[in-house]
Amino acid sequence: MIEPLRVGVAGLGTVGAAVVRILARQDNALAERCGRPIRVTAVSARERKKDRGLELSRYAWFEDATELARSRDVDCVIELIGGSDGAANATVETAIASGKHVVTANKALLAARGLRLARAAEERGVALSFEAAAAGGIPVIKTLREALHGNAVWRIYGILNGTCNYILSRMEQEGLSFAECLTDAQRLGYAEADPTFDVEGFDTAHKLSILTSLAFGTEIDAEAIYVEGISKIAPLDLKMADELGYRIKLLGVAERTKSGVEQRVHPTMVPKSSSIAQVMGVTNAVTIDADAVRELTLIGPGAGGDATASAVIADIADIASGTIRPPFGRPTARLEKPQRAPMQRHEGGYYIRLTVPDRPRVAAGVATHMGDEDISLESIVQKRSDVAATKDRHGRSGAPVSLVLVTYAAAESAIRSALDKIERDGLTSEPPQVVRIERE
Amino acid sequence: MIEPLRVGVAGLGTVGAAVVRILARQDNALAERCGRPIRVTAVSARERKKDRGLELSRYAWFEDATELARSRDVDCVIELIGGSDGAANATVETAIASGKHVVTANKALLAARGLRLARAAEERGVALSFEAAAAGGIPVIKTLREALHGNAVWRIYGILNGTCNYILSRMEQEGLSFAECLTDAQRLGYAEADPTFDVEGFDTAHKLSILTSLAFGTEIDAEAIYVEGISKIAPLDLKMADELGYRIKLLGVAERTKSGVEQRVHPTMVPKSSSIAQVMGVTNAVTIDADAVRELTLIGPGAGGDATASAVIADIADIASGTIRPPFGRPTARLEKPQRAPMQRHEGGYYIRLTVPDRPRVAAGVATHMGDEDISLESIVQKRSDVAATKDRHGRSGAPVSLVLVTYAAAESAIRSALDKIERDGLTSEPPQVVRIERE
Repeated sequence: MIEPLRVGVAGLGTVGAAVVRILARQDNALAERCGRPIRVTAVSARERKKDRGLELSRYAWFEDATELARSRDVDCVIELIGGSDGAANATVETAIASGKHVVTANKALLAARGLRLARAAEERGVALSFEAAAAGGIPVIKTLREALHGNAVWRIYGILNGTCNYILSRMEQEGLSFAECLTDAQRLGYAEADPTFDVEGFDTAHKLSILTSLAFGTEIDAEAIYVEGISKIAPLDLKMADELGYRIKLLGVAERTKSGVEQRVHPTMVPKSSSIAQVMGVTNAVTIDADAVRELTLIGPGAGGDATASAVIADIADIASGTIRPPFGRPTARLEKPQRAPMQRHEGGYYIRLTVPDRPRVAAGVATHMGDEDISLESIVQKRSDVAATKDRHGRSGAPVSLVLVTYAAAESAIRSALDKIERDGLTSEPPQVVRIERE
Repeated sequence: MIEPLRVGVAGLGTVGAAVVRILARQDNALAERCGRPIRVTAVSARERKKDRGLELSRYAWFEDATELARSRDVDCVIELIGGSDGAANATVETAIASGKHVVTANKALLAARGLRLARAAEERGVALSFEAAAAGGIPVIKTLREALHGNAVWRIYGILNGTCNYILSRMEQEGLSFAECLTDAQRLGYAEADPTFDVEGFDTAHKLSILTSLAFGTEIDAEAIYVEGISKIAPLDLKMADELGYRIKLLGVAERTKSGVEQRVHPTMVPKSSSIAQVMGVTNAVTIDADAVRELTLIGPGAGGDATASAVIADIADIASGTIRPPFGRPTARLEKPQRAPMQRHEGGYYIRLTVPDRPRVAAGVATHMGDEDISLESIVQKRSDVAATKDRHGRSGAPVSLVLVTYAAAESAIRSALDKIERDGLTSEPPQVVRIERE
């Protein structure tokens, strides 16, 4: 009989506990499929006594996860502590330095130190695997690393944060405000007490940085990502999107352009008919556009104990089967230096909602500034305010109205310049709302 | 430098030519990612001189593919000849017997002889890989084999035939008949001159048999599959489905039930809100329901030279990287004997469309027979015929009308028995139309 792969689990939150439970439940099937049993031998967490529905006495207990990472009875360390430094980083670094394989779900750590850790793992000849770090239970890392060798990827984009998609779905379906939906999400446990990290797009950016590296064979470069969250999206924007044939999703998008690899996270209008537009609630989805396969979309759970554990266990199983691949798909020395495409050079369609005074020549003034920047308009819609107000002899209320523009492909810099002029001329009474459009 | 993996391509149709072309184009990237170059050294096809846009003089030419399979200059044979026996089978058997790895896209061959070939490959310690054999460019084989170790699969279902999905999509969107859409599909090259294999569900069944084996760890058992095609679906059924909140798709479904593994291919009503219902045209999709990951859906191209080649090349790359896995996910001796769940025991919702005479007590008679079989009805809709006809003093035309029933979960045997009685009593003037409903 082949020796079992001895696993140490550092961090026993929802995911860690699920990993321990499922490894026990799938014991025989895993041994048959991997040709080798997998055994949890050690665990570590902040509190030993917390009830997790697990019988911890079977496993060696470590107060300090770095001690677990050094243990002679562990071949493979599962890091589920979280955070981009501190204990998580120390545990991963110690494990690699001790010649142990590492599986982690820690996107923040990978976004910040992924390349360094991959180099260290490569030097020690151990695995650094992170299927669970992007899009939870969806096998997108394996797909990018092992299923698309025959392809040059053009673009990868996805709904990578369930909290944001839950909020946007409810705002759209029930006409509620961002604040109302956020409160509900918090009550249901879909959003943290401090939701900034999710709703402002940082979590999506961490995940995107990992997908970008795998998709384009570039060194991970999370700092280059343009990040914009969903907190400014108004119910009116979702209503307008609907009328124009779109839905608004918080997307992470990475795209190879002529100026380099563009990485951006922002609320995005996607055509209602696209696969990704159908994804509602906390579900995640990733679409990969590539030359041979054209379009591939993977939809599944982005979070949750069991679903994330499913991804962690796939990584453990690969290690047990003896399959050790370069963490980012090729040797770190062969990863390209990222050539950052600045957001100012982004080209695409734009939805622009202006709040304009209800007086003559405002629309003309707006359209002129757009034309001066060579921006072509696909549509222009003026929405009268619902607020009842006395009207002048022309039937105008004097109350501000919404002027919605949809542009054909234009440069971000041109849009920004036109909007600056529109604001300077007093043609808008509130900061313009801008949502980028992502076409199929 | 490590020796290259020497590849022989048997069959130079659209897929074979794309494989040769893409292997050349992705030459460097493949070597970096696999840690070893991949070189096409030999090819075989029926006609040497046909213009395929390839410079064949670079490769050793074999009239006979089994000679290629024996060649000392080939490490890995790509079988793209097609067909469940004859040259394809001889080539694969010869390659394995000669100690060469095999990659094939041949679902018919695998459905008929997959287990035997897997055993042979296992004995010789070579790979038998077939990512391209089900759902074309979608990495569903890799997902089932390598990404779901922590899961027990409950059900797998999918749109596995682009021809059928194209026909059903157009019938639905344009209200056309099956025959009209088939003619168009043939004209556009989406359907063969003899379309039986696709439209009657046999192609879907072959692919399903492969997915079933991987999903449930059972020996491949294509003969057990209940198969029903789409040729009897009428525009009225698609219209009724739409009104009831469903779409009709030809699905392959495999499900673990208490009587065993159920495998079936038939037109199926799926809720419009499901991911799979959104899949239109020639695109394929597979949904996997499993205990840890819950629901995972993969959507992508099911056919086409480049997309299928993408899957073939993923298999070749795994072999070049030194990753050889059991073809059906575990050693053949550990595959369970299939326990066939007979179709009569199938339980689910049913859509039944009866053509009934427009006279009193017909609906009552139909409902009574249903009730006698313990079948509960979720809805019952009577549609008056559009045919203008003279009406009697009650306003009845005497022309037959459509009576549509939707049942709650019921057994296939009960449905069949009720329908027999309804026909025997002369309550219907045409054979009943039955479409099974698949709920999420």
